[in-house]
This record gives sequence, C-alpha cells and structure tokens, in this order.
Amino acid sequence: MTVHQPDAPVGATPSLARGRHMLSIPGPSVMPDRVLAAMARAMPNIYEGPLVKVSEALLAKLPGFVGTTGHAFIAAANGHGAWEMALTNTLSPGDKVLVCESGRFAIGWGEQARMLGCEVEVMPARPRRAVDPAALEARLRADTGHAIKAILVVQVDTASSVWNDIAALRRAIDTAGHPALFMVDCIACLGCIEYRMDDWGVDVTVAGSQKGLMAPPGLGFCWASPRAMAVHVEARCRTAYWDWTARSQEGRHYLRYCGTPPVSHLYALTEAMAMLEEEGLTNVWARHGVLAGAARAAVAAWAAPGGLEFAVLEPAERSDVVTTVLTGGIDAERLRTIAEDRAGLTLGIGLGAFECRAFRIGHMGHLNPPMLLGTLGTVEATLVSWGAPLGGSGVAAAAAHIAGHLGAETVPAGSLQGFNP
Amino acid sequence: MTVHQPDAPVGATPSLARGRHMLSIPGPSVMPDRVLAAMARAMPNIYEGPLVKVSEALLAKLPGFVGTTGHAFIAAANGHGAWEMALTNTLSPGDKVLVCESGRFAIGWGEQARMLGCEVEVMPARPRRAVDPAALEARLRADTGHAIKAILVVQVDTASSVWNDIAALRRAIDTAGHPALFMVDCIACLGCIEYRMDDWGVDVTVAGSQKGLMAPPGLGFCWASPRAMAVHVEARCRTAYWDWTARSQEGRHYLRYCGTPPVSHLYALTEAMAMLEEEGLTNVWARHGVLAGAARAAVAAWAAPGGLEFAVLEPAERSDVVTTVLTGGIDAERLRTIAEDRAGLTLGIGLGAFECRAFRIGHMGHLNPPMLLGTLGTVEATLVSWGAPLGGSGVAAAAAHIAGHLGAETVPAGSLQGFNP
Amino acid sequence: MTVHQPDAPVGATPSLARGRHMLSIPGPSVMPDRVLAAMARAMPNIYEGPLVKVSEALLAKLPGFVGTTGHAFIAAANGHGAWEMALTNTLSPGDKVLVCESGRFAIGWGEQARMLGCEVEVMPARPRRAVDPAALEARLRADTGHAIKAILVVQVDTASSVWNDIAALRRAIDTAGHPALFMVDCIACLGCIEYRMDDWGVDVTVAGSQKGLMAPPGLGFCWASPRAMAVHVEARCRTAYWDWTARSQEGRHYLRYCGTPPVSHLYALTEAMAMLEEEGLTNVWARHGVLAGAARAAVAAWAAPGGLEFAVLEPAERSDVVTTVLTGGIDAERLRTIAEDRAGLTLGIGLGAFECRAFRIGHMGHLNPPMLLGTLGTVEATLVSWGAPLGGSGVAAAAAHIAGHLGAETVPAGSLQGFNP
Amino acid sequence: MTVHQPDAPVGATPSLARGRHMLSIPGPSVMPDRVLAAMARAMPNIYEGPLVKVSEALLAKLPGFVGTTGHAFIAAANGHGAWEMALTNTLSPGDKVLVCESGRFAIGWGEQARMLGCEVEVMPARPRRAVDPAALEARLRADTGHAIKAILVVQVDTASSVWNDIAALRRAIDTAGHPALFMVDCIACLGCIEYRMDDWGVDVTVAGSQKGLMAPPGLGFCWASPRAMAVHVEARCRTAYWDWTARSQEGRHYLRYCGTPPVSHLYALTEAMAMLEEEGLTNVWARHGVLAGAARAAVAAWAAPGGLEFAVLEPAERSDVVTTVLTGGIDAERLRTIAEDRAGLTLGIGLGAFECRAFRIGHMGHLNPPMLLGTLGTVEATLVSWGAPLGGSGVAAAAAHIAGHLGAETVPAGSLQGFNP
Repeated sequence: MTVHQPDAPVGATPSLARGRHMLSIPGPSVMPDRVLAAMARAMPNIYEGPLVKVSEALLAKLPGFVGTTGHAFIAAANGHGAWEMALTNTLSPGDKVLVCESGRFAIGWGEQARMLGCEVEVMPARPRRAVDPAALEARLRADTGHAIKAILVVQVDTASSVWNDIAALRRAIDTAGHPALFMVDCIACLGCIEYRMDDWGVDVTVAGSQKGLMAPPGLGFCWASPRAMAVHVEARCRTAYWDWTARSQEGRHYLRYCGTPPVSHLYALTEAMAMLEEEGLTNVWARHGVLAGAARAAVAAWAAPGGLEFAVLEPAERSDVVTTVLTGGIDAERLRTIAEDRAGLTLGIGLGAFECRAFRIGHMGHLNPPMLLGTLGTVEATLVSWGAPLGGSGVAAAAAHIAGHLGAETVPAGSLQGFNP
Repeated sequence: MTVHQPDAPVGATPSLARGRHMLSIPGPSVMPDRVLAAMARAMPNIYEGPLVKVSEALLAKLPGFVGTTGHAFIAAANGHGAWEMALTNTLSPGDKVLVCESGRFAIGWGEQARMLGCEVEVMPARPRRAVDPAALEARLRADTGHAIKAILVVQVDTASSVWNDIAALRRAIDTAGHPALFMVDCIACLGCIEYRMDDWGVDVTVAGSQKGLMAPPGLGFCWASPRAMAVHVEARCRTAYWDWTARSQEGRHYLRYCGTPPVSHLYALTEAMAMLEEEGLTNVWARHGVLAGAARAAVAAWAAPGGLEFAVLEPAERSDVVTTVLTGGIDAERLRTIAEDRAGLTLGIGLGAFECRAFRIGHMGHLNPPMLLGTLGTVEATLVSWGAPLGGSGVAAAAAHIAGHLGAETVPAGSLQGFNP
Repeated sequence: MTVHQPDAPVGATPSLARGRHMLSIPGPSVMPDRVLAAMARAMPNIYEGPLVKVSEALLAKLPGFVGTTGHAFIAAANGHGAWEMALTNTLSPGDKVLVCESGRFAIGWGEQARMLGCEVEVMPARPRRAVDPAALEARLRADTGHAIKAILVVQVDTASSVWNDIAALRRAIDTAGHPALFMVDCIACLGCIEYRMDDWGVDVTVAGSQKGLMAPPGLGFCWASPRAMAVHVEARCRTAYWDWTARSQEGRHYLRYCGTPPVSHLYALTEAMAMLEEEGLTNVWARHGVLAGAARAAVAAWAAPGGLEFAVLEPAERSDVVTTVLTGGIDAERLRTIAEDRAGLTLGIGLGAFECRAFRIGHMGHLNPPMLLGTLGTVEATLVSWGAPLGGSGVAAAAAHIAGHLGAETVPAGSLQGFNP
Repeated sequence: MTVHQPDAPVGATPSLARGRHMLSIPGPSVMPDRVLAAMARAMPNIYEGPLVKVSEALLAKLPGFVGTTGHAFIAAANGHGAWEMALTNTLSPGDKVLVCESGRFAIGWGEQARMLGCEVEVMPARPRRAVDPAALEARLRADTGHAIKAILVVQVDTASSVWNDIAALRRAIDTAGHPALFMVDCIACLGCIEYRMDDWGVDVTVAGSQKGLMAPPGLGFCWASPRAMAVHVEARCRTAYWDWTARSQEGRHYLRYCGTPPVSHLYALTEAMAMLEEEGLTNVWARHGVLAGAARAAVAAWAAPGGLEFAVLEPAERSDVVTTVLTGGIDAERLRTIAEDRAGLTLGIGLGAFECRAFRIGHMGHLNPPMLLGTLGTVEATLVSWGAPLGGSGVAAAAAHIAGHLGAETVPAGSLQGFNP
C-alpha cells in the first residue's frame, strides 16, 4: 500500500484539536475576518488623502461611542499605555489617588500612579464582590480636605470577572460631594456592555482595542471630559508621547499620534467600528447579555459540591464579558492544557489569588451561539473526561437559555403542526 | 446622550448571529485560515521556478494520498468537471454504464455519461440504504456478455449521507468475475475517511478540492489505474480539455492543466495537504471518526416519535462526513433560516426526496470539538426554541462522546484528588 | 561583534531582487490587492443569500461588459476550458471550421475542434502580421456551399502580440455574404482594449479571468449571441459540464456552474469588476493605450541593428496588452533569467517560432506608470549589463511618452515660473 | 450598444494611476506581502505556547541584529514612543542633554527630554551638512564638569536625508574623554545600512518597525548597553509603561510588553526578520547601497541650474535610505499631487525648512530595481510633463547604474556573440 502517511503511534490517542482554533480568553478576543483583512492592507500615503480621512473619522466617532461630548485620543500602545496616558495627563507628583479594588486591575493602575510620584490609597475589596458604593461614599466623606484628586475604578475586572456599577459609584461620589476626578477603566468591556460616560459623570475613560472593540492589541484609548481637560492643563506628570494638548491640535495629523500613525490598526478599528454600527450598539449589548446569560447557565448547571463554582458571589455583579470559574480541587492549568492540546480551545488562566484554581471564559466581542456553545461544550467534554463532579450538562442549559432568545416570533404557529398534530 | 447608534426597533429580538459564522454544510467545508492566506498570494512566474515545483510536487504526492501507484490529474474545474474528465477519458459512445444508486449523486454522474452517448442502466437503491454488494454481484453475473464497461458508485452520497463499502463492492465484482472498470466518486469524503484505491481495486477515483481536501471549490481530481489508462487510449469520448494523454506528458508544465494553471488553488491545496501531512492521514481519519460519532450521538439523543430521525436506516452505513437528519413534521427550511439569521449557523439543505424534510450537518475537513459542538448546540437551541419534541440533549450527548476520546491517559490520577478526597 | 548574519560570500554579487516582485508576463497579470483579499474570504452558504446574489449580479453584468445583449456563462475552468465550452456548444462532429492563423493561439483552438470530430482548415498567417480581412473575404467567397460553419479568430495573439481588427474581419464576412458563426477569443485582452460584440457581429466571445479581468486563473467565460444560442440547440458536441442550456436556467443556482460554484473566484471577479467600474471602462481602455504607447516607445528606442526589434512588423497591428520583442543574437532565456534572479522581474517567454529568440512584456490589467517604467527600466538595466547594442534609452523614451498624458492642464501656468523667470 | 460603463467626460485626461500604488516615502516603507499576511493571523493563546516562543525568539535575536550584547526592548508604540522609552529610562529631571542637530529629528527628541524636565542644549547644524565630529569634540572638551549626561544624535535624518558617521562621533567623544551616554536614533535606517552598536560604543539605540524593519508602524525598539542599564537604575524619569526593569524579567511574558503584547506586530516582525535573515544582513546593506546609488545617479542627471538639486551638499553625507531633492522654483507639493493622482506614486513631503521646496524619495526596506526605477521613471515623467529644466534622463542613468551591479559574471562571454559577430 502506498498511502504515504504514517500510522499514528501505537497507543496514542490522536488529538481532536485540528480545526479552527477557538480562543475563549478575556482578550484579545476573536478577531472578525473582516478586521484581519483590513489589517493586511498595504501602507498608504500618510501625509494626506484617505488615511487621514480614516483617522479623523475615527476620532470624530469615538466620543459618541462612549456617550460623551469630550475628547477622544488614540495611542499606539496597549491598555497599560492608555492607563499611563490617563494618569500622566491629569496628575502631578504628590497627588493623592484612591484606587477602588475589585480584583486585580485597578491595583495595577494604581501602581502606575505611584511610580509617577502620586500617593496611592487602595480601598480594599470585599471578597469576590464588586466595589461597594456605600464604602466609597464613606471614604470620600472622610476626605474633608479633598486631598483625593482622582478615583480609579474598573467597570469589569478581567481577573475576577466582577462588574462594577459605575452609575452607582458616581452617585456615591455626588452624595459625598467630592470633587475628585472619576476615572474608569473599561478595557475589558467597552463595546460589549452599556456605558454612558457623560450620563454617569465619568471624567476619564480608558480602553484598549483588543476586546469588545474587536481589533488586535496595539491601540490604547482615552476619553476626557471638559473637567479632565481643564485639570490636564496644570498636570505636571505630562510627557510628550501621551500629551493630550499636542494630540488635540486640529489640522496637523502627525501630532494626533505623536509621530507615525498606527496605520494597520486604524484600518482594523475602522472595520470593527463599521461592524458595530451595522449591528447597532444596543443590539451588541443585548447580544452580549443573552450570550453571557448562556455562559452563566452553563456554569450554574455544572456547579457541584467539591467542584466548580462562580468566582463572583453575587449574581448581579457577574459581568457580561467574562466569567471566572473556580475549579475546586481540579488543577485548572491541566484542564486548560487538555482543552488546548486535545480539543482546540484556549481558556483564560486564573490570575492572582485564583492562579491554578480557576479558569476564565471570555465571551466578548465577535461572538455568537456556535462559538459560545462550542466553547462550553468543549469545556464540558474536558470536565467529563476527568470524571469531575458535575451538577448537570452546562452546554445543554446554555443552549436552552439561547433558545429563549432566538426570536420565535418569526415562526408562525402553523409551522409546528407536524409536532403537535 | 450622545451614543450615536440607534436603539433597536421596539419589539424586535436582536439577532445573535454576529460572530464567526459557522458553515456546517457538506461542502464546501470550513477552510483553514492558512489555506485562505495561501490563496491570496500574488501571481508568480508560471513558466519555471517555484510554481512549477509546487505543481509537480502536488502531482507526485496525490497518488500516495489515495493509495495508488497510478496517475493523478488536477483540472481547473469542480467535482462535476472531474466526473466528466473520468467519463470522457474512459468511455466511447454506445458503451454501457452501470450506475449503483444510493442517493442522488451517482445518478447525476450517470446522466453525464448518457449525454456523452453511453447507454446507462441504474441499479436502484434500497430505500435509505447503501448499495447492496449482493445485488451488484447478481447484476454482473447476469451480464454474461460483459456489455457493461463501467460501474459508477459514490463512496459517500452527500445527499443521503450514506456510506458505501467500496471494498465489499469490489469483492462482489471479483466474485462475479466481471471486467468492467470500477469508478468511484470520493468527492464528499476523500481526506476524511479511509480510502485505499489499489487495495480495493478501483480503476478511477474522482474527487474535488472543497471538502476533505480543505481547499476552495475550483479543482477537480482524477486518479487512474494502469487498466484505466489502457482503456483510455481507445476511448472515443475524449476531448482536449480533459485529456489524460496530453496531461501526462513530463516536462511541459503548460500541458498539465491544458493551459494556464489554477495558481491560487494550487497554493491553497499545497497548504491544505501540508496540514494533512502534519496531522498524519490516519489521525485525520480517526478524528473524523470521533467527531462523526459525536454528531450521531446528538441525533440519537434528539430522536423522538414525530420528531427527528436519521435518514440512513442502518447505523453501519452512516458516513463519517455528513449526517442527514429527517425532520418529521418540521419545516426544515424554516429551521435552517432561523439558525442562519438568528444564530450564525448554516446547515445543509435537504436534497431530492428530502427537500424541506431534512437538514444536513457537514462534519468534514477542518473540524474540531469547539466547531462541532457549537453546531450541535446551536441546532439544539433552534429546536428547543420551536418546541420540537426532543428525546434529550444532543449536544450534551455529543460532549460526553468526545469526552471519551480526549486522551485521559495524559492526566495522572492524582490530579483528580480534589474531587475524590 | 555579534551581528549574526554572515557576510556575503567573497566575490559574489548580491542579488538586487529582494523587493516586491514584478510580474510582467501576458497573463496572469498582477492581481490587485483588493482582489486577492476578496479571494481569501471564508466559504459561505452556497444555497441562498449573499453568494447567490453575487453570482447573479455577475452574470447580469457580464453581457454589458462586452457590449452584447446575449447570454454570459462562467465556468470553473481556464481559457482552454472556455474554448471547449464555445466549441462543444455550437458544433457537431463533421462540421467544418475555419481557423484564422495569426500566431499560436487560434491554432490551438482549432486543434480542440479537430479532437471533437470537426474538419478544421487553417487560413495561414502572413509572416508577423495580423489576419488579412481580404484573404478571409476571398476564402469565404470560395466557400459557395457554405460548408464552413464557424470562423475562429483571436483578437490579440498572446504569443506574437499581434492585434486583429475584429470589426474589419466582420465586414469581410458580411461582404462575402457568409453565414458562418463568428467566434472570437478575447482571452488576452478583454477589459483592456475596445471590444463591441454586438456592434461587430460576433456570435461567440471567449475570455478568461486572469488577464484584463484582473482575477486569478480559474474562470472561463463565454458570451453567446441569439444566433449562437439557436445553433446550440442542434449542436451534437455538447457535454454536461459545458452545456449552455442547463446553465441558462433561471432560479436554480446550482446549475449555473454545473455543480459547486467557484466561490473564491466569484468573490475575486466581483471585486475586479468593481474596480473596472470605478475607473470606467473607456478610461481603462485609454490607460492601456497610453501605457502600451510607452512600452512601444521603449522598444523603438532600444531597437538597433543586430539587436532588438518588434515581433509585429506593422505598427498598427501591435496590441495594447503585450509586446513581443525579438532579441536578435541575444539568448532571450538568459536575459529573462538575469532579470528574474538578479532584479526581481519576470518577463514572458518567447513561444513557438520565437522560443529563446524573444521575450514578451505584458502590459495588461492592473498597471500604472510606476509598474511599467519599473519593468522597462529593469529590462534596460539587464540589456546594458550585457553590453547589448541599444539605440537609446527605452525607459527615458517611455517616461517622456507618459509625460504627454499626465494631464498637464491641471497645472496652472504660474506654477512653472520658478523655471522660467 | 450595451456597454454599461459611461464614456469618460469630454476633455478630461484619464488618470494613469490605477495599478499597484507605489509608496516611495521615507517610512512607512512598502511592506512585503509575506509580512502583511503574517499580520492578518488570528489571535492566539497569549499565556503560553507559540506566541510566547515567537516573542522570546525575537527578543533573543534583536541584540545581534544591531551588534550588541546588551538588552533589547520592544514596546507597543511608534518611534516617538521609543524615544520616550530611551529618555525616561536613563535620565532624571535636571539632567543636561546635548542634541546634535542635523535636520529635524534629533531636535524633536530633545524637546521630549525638555518636557521630562531635562536641560537641553542644541549643538547647531552646519547648513545641509552632517554633524561635525570636531564640533562635538570641542563642545565636550568645554564641558569640563561633565554636566552633559547624554548626547542625542540620529544616524540618518529623515527630513534632510543626511547620514551621520556614528563611528566618527564616537571617536570624537572618546577623544574628548567625556562620559556622557551616547544615544543614537536609527529609526530611519536600521536594517538598511551598516550599524554596529558595540563596536561604535553606542549606549542606547532607538528604532521603529516601519522602515528598514519592514513591519507596519506600531513597534518601538530600544537597545541598552550595560552602561545604560546601570544608569537606568538611578534614573528618576522612569514610568511604568516604558520601564526597562520590569520588561527585563525572565519568565513572565506579560511583563515584556507591560500588558497585552502587540500580537499582530510580533507576527509581522518575525516574518520580516526571517526575510532579512534569508537574504543576509550584509547583502541587505549592499542592496541598499546599489539602489541608493541609482537614486543619486538619477538626481545627479536631473540636476540643472534653476531646477533640482540634492538637499545634502556633501556627497559622502547622503544617506542610503532616503534622498531629499530640492525643487528650486517648482512647487514640490503640486508635483507630488500629480504623481499621486495621475500616476500612482506617493513621494515624501518636504519637512521643516524644505516645506513645499523639496520632495523626498524613500528607498528603504523591501526594494528592488523594478520598484526604484518605477519611482524614478514616474518622477521623470512628472517633471517632463511640467517642462522642468532637466540635465538629462535620471531614470536612464539609474538603470545604467544598476546595470553595473547585476552580476555580469553569471553570463558567459559566448552568450553575447550575437551582438558582436
């Protein structure tokens, strides 16, 4: 026989992974093909013409996207760069900054502020819970001298998957009558869930390209309210690369990006924004709500004593973009390895306190039922193959959840008559 | 509020489809990104150099791929073109051809032979069953004058999803002692399931690029045994475009494709073949076996009186590349429409007798658990949303089936201790 | 020093080829990036929805593109397949076919007809000249019994680069009062130069995707006049794959392509047609006229006793899509090799009688001054490096020719004042 | 007539631009197709596996690439970000910095240092000349107290196109016995021309992705000598995003990029580096030398009283990556517009003092004779169309220059016999 492929090694179980790899981590998300194709375009004239139009159109569109009349800035950077842009443009050495802990990411942002010479205070998190508005109000009331210049919080913490109620935190600040800048990191969730910068009185919003915005990592974003821009004028942490003043100048495109613009990413982001517009932003939010509900239905079905459980205790505080699952006695890293090597699925790692004790399912951005149910089904297969104690089929529960949102009104009653004669 | 996206129309249920579309039809299959990227390469020198090497390497590799020492031919054409290549190169007007019916596709091939002036006899199928080797043997024994010059059969019928046992059919021919050419259409399954052209005494094998070979539609293939090549010399249906003699000449690359080679497809196929080699062909077959088992586990779980059932009655005759599901009283086309428009999944249509009474799940080529389970989960969500009578969760059953093939031997016992303290 | 790259071998001259390779052959032409990106899209639903719309839109647009009210057909095939489609759909065994020789390609078409059982007569070419309308008229007048059923001619012969005056040949047929079908191969030039199928009384037009249509090789086209369609009904060379009747049926998309449609090529062609529409077809023709003029200016400048000369003797018969250059005593294949290996340029080979005594410069499709002048400059550098006798700088002559067509009217007189104070 | 494309407007001259656009600006350079395809890959697992290997391989390879044993750093940023990384990691507020002016870019770098709180002194340029080593030596000798902590210089100034002799400047510093850090911006030229960081005693090298490194803009690079790393420990301008210490930690990939890695750019850069390795770095340098020689031959041929001239007065100081051409009385911006709109070529704008009085020809990176000669031929056509006074044909001179470097030794003498009988 002349079939030239060797037989598999005796006793080995062939991997099933060889298909379209599924990336279910909380960022970067799965990029749409259209966005990747846009990335691959040839370099253009960077002085005038179409690229400049593309860039100016993005900058004009971004404020509306977060619900602000303020300024938008795009940097060639990642989300940590956007953090640094937010801080350097609004703070001066010695300023006091209050970090609202709710996982891992606001802490990291605060560490950046400390390195810039700010005094950083962390308001500790309640275990596996969101930031407590009442605690924030109390802390701010205690700051009678208004020493606190800025409050840092994340809308969703990518590590714990907790969702913070930004509107409620704003009300807490208002109730306390505190003038600190309110700075919100939306890196994990912008474009996936409701966010209303002006309505919620946010002064600085920070985001990155690689999650809900469906563009590869490499762009950092800031939006600044008029108040933030006013504070910015006096900020002494400013550096040339991040500086909002230079980047605000009309008519000199070169200054928008402090040098060569990130051409390929601007193309990618333009395509991604077009996709969000085609769908309609509220539809995007609704889609994420349904699919996150399905992910949570799966975890709830799997949950069992000694087995899996939600990282976030309070259901209302579970985010619509990522779900962190504690694995009890299972080595989460081995579970991830099997999913990756044997089945073609990448899950997010457990971070910080959850290291090796949790996996994370990203469900953000370019996501639909075949993708999410494929992920959940594969997690379930992996768990079953281990003999993990499971309360029930998570993927079946997720499918049932989605079934309730497939728009049955489009099916006339008569079409079911075959089933119910 | 300045969010510029309009709210969704009141009362409408937003579609969940906006993610990576899942194409679960029996061809074209989902193309690997690597293959699509290879398609997009710039045009090369077509006279000499790398392209000619690529082309000759493919032609040298293809015989081993089907287990033959015979010749391989690649045409710029689709599978129907490959059919015509097979017929015109081996038949003459007036020749008698026996078509073994087992669904729809061998019939179509026979109609081509009739248009070429051949006499075509159809050996009828048993309802929802594979071709019966005993019936073939009986028919051939009756052909005492050896009027039948060629026997046409498909390995898998894409419409019914039935699998024919080519080795058994060969034995039937041998037992009958009949000299007709044995011509097998592997379009639906080559590269997915076991096929051994020389071992099984096949004279002409036909395939296309767009299914198990994981390259876009646009290439048709024939493989010819020495016997077929000998018959070819006398065949009077030959035309210039398909002619094997011209295409067999060494050293004149231009003749290989009767004109300009299908450059982009040759690049794509080279990449796809590299992927099959990396995995190992027997591993590819094994992977399809496991995943087809999962698809069948799902259908078996869904099956219910008045509801879904397998199109193929005999379990051993269900193919590993496509599963046709009869939908009872459900309008299968409406079900497909909801899956497509609301959830981002394309299912195969019911063909021929099954029109609007069946859907087909393609599970061929570039496929892994997240893809298949995503498809099955979405089908289940669609069925549930309709209130279809279901025996149970198909996607849960499929996940459980896959769990048995994830290579649990890689997990040391100790890693489960958390579950079993 | 830790630079890890090795020094070049002593004495070797490094190649200069490492940049964007330039392909200047008479097809495939250089594909636009947009077209290649369109090729790389994922496989779609092939039963309904966007792909079917794309396909029907193409079929609806193609007749206007060649100036006919007749039918258009697209086959998964190359240009030789389109030849076969044209012949099998209009001829019957024993029909007499007149081939108008003007290089190499009509001859090959005629050989296909002979293989189908037709009687083929070749009207010989005048050396290095176009087909002579007077000779055609004389031959047809002599055919008093109207035995000749079809006349085959190419608009441009890719080998010799000669251009035939189709309108004049039509007039010759009309003057002779002969009823034969007039069949024209436009493979080399469609989309580049003027072509008016109905105005010129053409019955069947044949083309391929890979030249002026700027899509990769893999599609063959036919257009049929009402007269051709009427003859088709009686044609006895028809086969299933090429059959116009089956492909003409409305509402059954599957029949349009006799099986699976060539999806990727349909995407590519749609993008290419969009580019042609954006520019405007008469502008496309004008651009080719200017650039071909530049190519000819270069060859005229290079021409020298014992050196280069045009293959086509009569200037009015030199095509606007390819220029064949005789190389006198130079080994044209070595010249091509140096251009390819040392400078990154592929030139077309000499075909037939010109083998090794000519090279060809393709100037078709996606072409502008930087591309053409880059080609001509590189040819010149190669010639100079050999010490070839040159009449003058061809690339300078070509640049000067282009200078006359850059739209100087857009520059107000005042802007030159610095030069002419 | 049914040709559906409208005729061109009466009297308008159709643009010739519709072909592969040629981008001849000094960065971003023309990206290789392979690099763009690499950019378009799907997002990977970012925690472990292939991406981490790709990233670590790049970081391991980069030091050798510039000839250092020091550290390499990659930031998601552009070249200006790399400037800021270099400065913040080595300087403290109040430090004195000496900027060696030779055009525009070192000045901008110095402005960044001033914004960080450093004292910046500019050593003025000689008009249209490189930095004078003697002047540097004199200035450093005068700094007896060693107040100057860092010397900033560019290897090539992208605006003026001047090349500075870094080895000679190092000798000047050594002769003066001055301990300041020697910081060199190679953004415009790294990967195109010779650079030997350790041999030339450079402490910090800065580069970007989009020029000689043939990857899209979006990556900034620093290389730091052991001395620079030692100074870094005490530097007080450090910020979290740029910080070398955090980025130096082995085994924590996440820290390498201060957050999410710039995945797509890492893929692109890996492909580009592979191309540089395949060619061999000294061959890359040699290719740029030949092609730059051709560009200069063109400008020298065009040069005429009242017309074009080199921006850089001294031939030995003209760089091999970009050539700035002064246009005398011609409005350089109108010339650029015609080349862009009518002929498909983008030229670089005149910057600073040269605004509207110069254009720049980038000849860096992925470049070969067809590309460069296409650019030069198109510039010539544009100049001729204006009636500009030209000394002669630049493109002919460039072709002749290249002819001398096509490796005539590969042609045996006999092959020319046809010319010299």
